[in-house]
Amino acid sequence: VRLYTYFRSSAAFRVRIALHLKGLRYEPHAVSLPRGVHRQAEYASVNPQALVPTLVTDDGLHLAQSLAIMEYLEEAHPEPALLPRDMAGKARVRSLSLLVACEIHPLNNLRTLQYLKRELKLGEDQVNAWYRYWIAEGLGKLEAEMRAPLTGKFSHGDAPTMADCCLVPQIFNAKRYECDLSPYPTVMRVFGECMKLDAFDRAQPSRQPDAE
Amino acid sequence: VRLYTYFRSSAAFRVRIALHLKGLRYEPHAVSLPRGVHRQAEYASVNPQALVPTLVTDDGLHLAQSLAIMEYLEEAHPEPALLPRDMAGKARVRSLSLLVACEIHPLNNLRTLQYLKRELKLGEDQVNAWYRYWIAEGLGKLEAEMRAPLTGKFSHGDAPTMADCCLVPQIFNAKRYECDLSPYPTVMRVFGECMKLDAFDRAQPSRQPDAE
Repeated sequence: VRLYTYFRSSAAFRVRIALHLKGLRYEPHAVSLPRGVHRQAEYASVNPQALVPTLVTDDGLHLAQSLAIMEYLEEAHPEPALLPRDMAGKARVRSLSLLVACEIHPLNNLRTLQYLKRELKLGEDQVNAWYRYWIAEGLGKLEAEMRAPLTGKFSHGDAPTMADCCLVPQIFNAKRYECDLSPYPTVMRVFGECMKLDAFDRAQPSRQPDAE
Repeated sequence: VRLYTYFRSSAAFRVRIALHLKGLRYEPHAVSLPRGVHRQAEYASVNPQALVPTLVTDDGLHLAQSLAIMEYLEEAHPEPALLPRDMAGKARVRSLSLLVACEIHPLNNLRTLQYLKRELKLGEDQVNAWYRYWIAEGLGKLEAEMRAPLTGKFSHGDAPTMADCCLVPQIFNAKRYECDLSPYPTVMRVFGECMKLDAFDRAQPSRQPDAE
């Protein structure tokens, strides 16, 4: 499979983790978001959504949206599972994943920050305040969710799931923006457990071939 | 089942459509977002994410995040299906759903607009420009996706799916903010097809018991 990726994209980071957890090899194809390569005509034929990641399967399917890609990988390669077997567990893992993917990341991704700077002419302090506000809002909710006994060594139980694939890239972003992470001890404990695993470690931005 | 809902919440609107499509009855429980009822201590025990919708099943499960709820409904009540049977089709429908849920809605929901007004002191024109910018970005991508032959009478094929459950509430929002929808003829054709169905019509904001 081929993965269109950008080292710093958290959505691509999620999929890199999932591929590693499942032991699937992939050919990385770098798409520079700051240089706008994803907006060029050539990339539109790869992904009409003009976003990374895109996974191109060996039979030529082009898959967009990180959570949809992870669901596909789960169906195509069920072991090791990234979703629990029980319906309630699946709903919880999806809900934790979506909490990161819908409530935090869209407010803080590159194009949103670019709008704040270019269109609204916000200064660095205001942009940082915006960033940290949505991190605090979202991680506060995640911490509340993860205080439930269903959270074990990882976000859900004692094996990594899709929820951990979403959590870890978000914490990398939060650290990059020097957010205060002390109010989220459960989240940070799980983050620490994840980073002990090779699959998470290898997927991190600084270890990518396109890292700057 | 009980659904914690707010008439104008598009995430709740998605789930209302899915419940109607599957012929499932539910007891609506209104949570006023403008009055901040979702942030009160009482609601934290319903949903630690402090968001609507929440679906409470008959056996007492509390489910959060509209896409996770729809996936749960799909597993618990497979017919009529809101996801195609084939893996590629499932990935496409999830991708179209996430395109709305991750790329458009989070930028334009109530709490984001409140931040723009209250914290950044933006005027009405700037808030409207922000709203319309993200609608145009997102619907442009959706239109590009839906020009593929896999789109039929509905977003994917000739029966409504989860993607339509996400699309329709987003168009309601776009109309409310008087966005120009002429660049998205395929999206609007599908929207028109959806609105012919009772399940979509009954789920719309103005038909809810808590509508103002």
